[in-house]
Amino acid sequence: MSRPRPLSPADAAFLYAETREAPQHVGTLMRLQPPEEASPEYLRGVFERLRAAPSVASPWNRKLATPWFQHNPLHAWVEDEDFDFDYHVRRTAVPAPGDERELGTLVARLHASPLDLSKPLWELHVIEGLEDGGFALFAKVHHSLVDGYTLTKAHEHAFTTDPDSPQSRLFYNVPLKTAAVSDDVAPSWASATGLLRSAGQGVRALGPLTRALSRLTWNRGALVGTFQAPHTPFNQRITRNRRFATQQYPLAQLKRLAKASGTTLNDIALAVCGGGIRRYLLDQGELPDAPLVAFVPVNIRPEDDPGGGNAVGALLASMATDVADPIERLRAVNASTTEAKNQFVGMTPETIVAYSQTLMAPVGLQTLSAVTGLGGQRILFNVVVSNVPGPPEPLYFAGARVEAMYPASIVSNGLALNITLFSYAGQVHLGFTGCRDTVPHLQKLAVYTGEAVAELEQALALQP
Amino acid sequence: MSRPRPLSPADAAFLYAETREAPQHVGTLMRLQPPEEASPEYLRGVFERLRAAPSVASPWNRKLATPWFQHNPLHAWVEDEDFDFDYHVRRTAVPAPGDERELGTLVARLHASPLDLSKPLWELHVIEGLEDGGFALFAKVHHSLVDGYTLTKAHEHAFTTDPDSPQSRLFYNVPLKTAAVSDDVAPSWASATGLLRSAGQGVRALGPLTRALSRLTWNRGALVGTFQAPHTPFNQRITRNRRFATQQYPLAQLKRLAKASGTTLNDIALAVCGGGIRRYLLDQGELPDAPLVAFVPVNIRPEDDPGGGNAVGALLASMATDVADPIERLRAVNASTTEAKNQFVGMTPETIVAYSQTLMAPVGLQTLSAVTGLGGQRILFNVVVSNVPGPPEPLYFAGARVEAMYPASIVSNGLALNITLFSYAGQVHLGFTGCRDTVPHLQKLAVYTGEAVAELEQALALQP
Repeated sequence: MSRPRPLSPADAAFLYAETREAPQHVGTLMRLQPPEEASPEYLRGVFERLRAAPSVASPWNRKLATPWFQHNPLHAWVEDEDFDFDYHVRRTAVPAPGDERELGTLVARLHASPLDLSKPLWELHVIEGLEDGGFALFAKVHHSLVDGYTLTKAHEHAFTTDPDSPQSRLFYNVPLKTAAVSDDVAPSWASATGLLRSAGQGVRALGPLTRALSRLTWNRGALVGTFQAPHTPFNQRITRNRRFATQQYPLAQLKRLAKASGTTLNDIALAVCGGGIRRYLLDQGELPDAPLVAFVPVNIRPEDDPGGGNAVGALLASMATDVADPIERLRAVNASTTEAKNQFVGMTPETIVAYSQTLMAPVGLQTLSAVTGLGGQRILFNVVVSNVPGPPEPLYFAGARVEAMYPASIVSNGLALNITLFSYAGQVHLGFTGCRDTVPHLQKLAVYTGEAVAELEQALALQP
Repeated sequence: MSRPRPLSPADAAFLYAETREAPQHVGTLMRLQPPEEASPEYLRGVFERLRAAPSVASPWNRKLATPWFQHNPLHAWVEDEDFDFDYHVRRTAVPAPGDERELGTLVARLHASPLDLSKPLWELHVIEGLEDGGFALFAKVHHSLVDGYTLTKAHEHAFTTDPDSPQSRLFYNVPLKTAAVSDDVAPSWASATGLLRSAGQGVRALGPLTRALSRLTWNRGALVGTFQAPHTPFNQRITRNRRFATQQYPLAQLKRLAKASGTTLNDIALAVCGGGIRRYLLDQGELPDAPLVAFVPVNIRPEDDPGGGNAVGALLASMATDVADPIERLRAVNASTTEAKNQFVGMTPETIVAYSQTLMAPVGLQTLSAVTGLGGQRILFNVVVSNVPGPPEPLYFAGARVEAMYPASIVSNGLALNITLFSYAGQVHLGFTGCRDTVPHLQKLAVYTGEAVAELEQALALQP
């Protein structure tokens, strides 16, 4: 048996948080198009080759040493010596007509199902039956093993940029270097109490954090502070069922909008998501007077970091859903993110982690109030909007072009909607993950954010 | 809101027993062949018609009043006023080539997934992509709502015997009359303690039970008593993953064997399952010296009872897996079941329930010992073998002939294998439900029981 490797407290936190209603895994839906000369048996052949050579690299061969003790304060990874390929890599099919809707339904069901904590914490679903003649891959990985950023890096490293290469590696074939930050820095945030305590230790050690936190409490102007978020349908108790919807825009289009408006790509993303949510909530007669607050994870790794473990900071930003005019909405978003980013000036990555954990500390309270219905005033933010940059070049797998990569993420009690953006090969791909029973018509929200892009473009072109 | 209807203790027991590893639902896999003149859009059309008229009869429209309180001693059903058709009736597809193996894999995954306790406790999966041009239906129903017998009755009543009828009713369209026994008689068996207590009350009330129980303890000859079962690989802690395999024989063939040997259909079933298990365990070098003991549920309803709720007695029988010769094995099985059935002579249905619950009482201990690894001597029986008689006539749904109906059942800690037989339209259909991680190569066991039939036939033909 291999030497047990302890999980960092940040990684283990996702095990403690795992419930039937809120499994803590992330996913990637990838659509691929086989090479033109491919035979009808192409996909089956690729799969049989994968099956014949099931080489599983670290950490993908790791399982929990004590899976039956979910709240073990000392979780550790050990190697799975009986790795069951047929369990982890699964073929499946969408029913006719194999369109976006059927694929979204299938992925929602696959994503809703928790991973088996007694096995290596990932599954790969090879999906056939798509109407365009292509196929899809849906990878599910527990957040205690890697975060979404690292998962997308692993896809990038496994695939090739050479369309003519027969290379058919998948994420689990590629060993991940673990970044030091995930093992050493991130303090325990197993519970709201633990969080506040560890953040408190951070405060004593780190000067800029104190100033940033005091600005949060005594905030003025555009800085979004604690407990400003309104009540929305997204902030209730969730069920174990999911919806999944997708959208994409050309990256160049969003960049053009950012340049024309003197804002950032992130601001554009928040503003169009805000525009989509505004219309979605208006449809339901549920738009609050105050703007929705987005929780925006910030990757604090150095550029070109290979990923590994969890290393995530965060800021809170207004989505300006109270503003009807698209340009005004963008301005309000930009003012809010500018203030929030000023908070980070002078902080080390470690301080940013501590600061972000303080932002997240009341999430425990928010989750609790969604479950109990008590303490209903404690909404800290409404929606998670995450933006993950990916590779600019098209990627290939066994000669098949990876046409799109959509992220699927975690929702939890009090946070029934997650929007994650992933830029790849000149497109920004959006994955909308929602609780099936509290976020109806999620596909409409995806459509409305698309319309918000068009609306913003038109408004900026019309600007004097 | 509808008036809450309390669950009987026997029905509620399946909620108390529900765990992630052992969800307490049963299933039916049905293979159907569309009419010859059917267009390629036939199945889609049928589905859209079902969707357009989602009439859900009682009890299929019931949900738990307090789903979040799994161990509520006073569980009750209420009507689901927001019935979500798309949640309960789902389209899915098998990947190429759409053969038995792919279908078995899909059904194993669907069966492994627990039902959502906050919704009506059933799902129907409409499965396309089968290589023979047919389709399949997989119905999953929680045992707290109906038992396997009632579920098959519900299928029978929904379908038609007229091949030319366009009738496309499914089990959930047909109201079930609830048999009195399920509401009034069955005592609580929520826990081993409760079981023993309620069985004890039964003993005081009912004379024949006392005599039967004392014979069990002081058994002689062929009567299988408590704690005679050997240790086998089927009697360990299970995981949440499943395998599903199927087999079928002509009913007339089994009847011929029963007649030629002077035994019963049930004896033939136990003997051929015993023969299959013998070879399966020999393959693995795990055949114990003592014969495996089968737990055989007995339906104690009057004939033509419409079902509803749970009304199940049981006996213990030797599977004679220690006997190599097929005729000798059959003789040993027959001697064992004859003695076990003699126990029931003079008992009312209520007494049979109380008696059977006493047999089952130590299951709590068996489950516990499988989990803890302690008290390892307490194996009461090894395998559940259930035989459910079904309709003799072929059934039709929307002009499609129901070609086969395979039951899927429950496995639990200490009982990793269930074999259920269902006779329908001249065939006996066997569904083998096993824990994926403790019962490998389940399909082999299905094949071996088929070979055991051939072997027995040959041996009986050669008999002087």
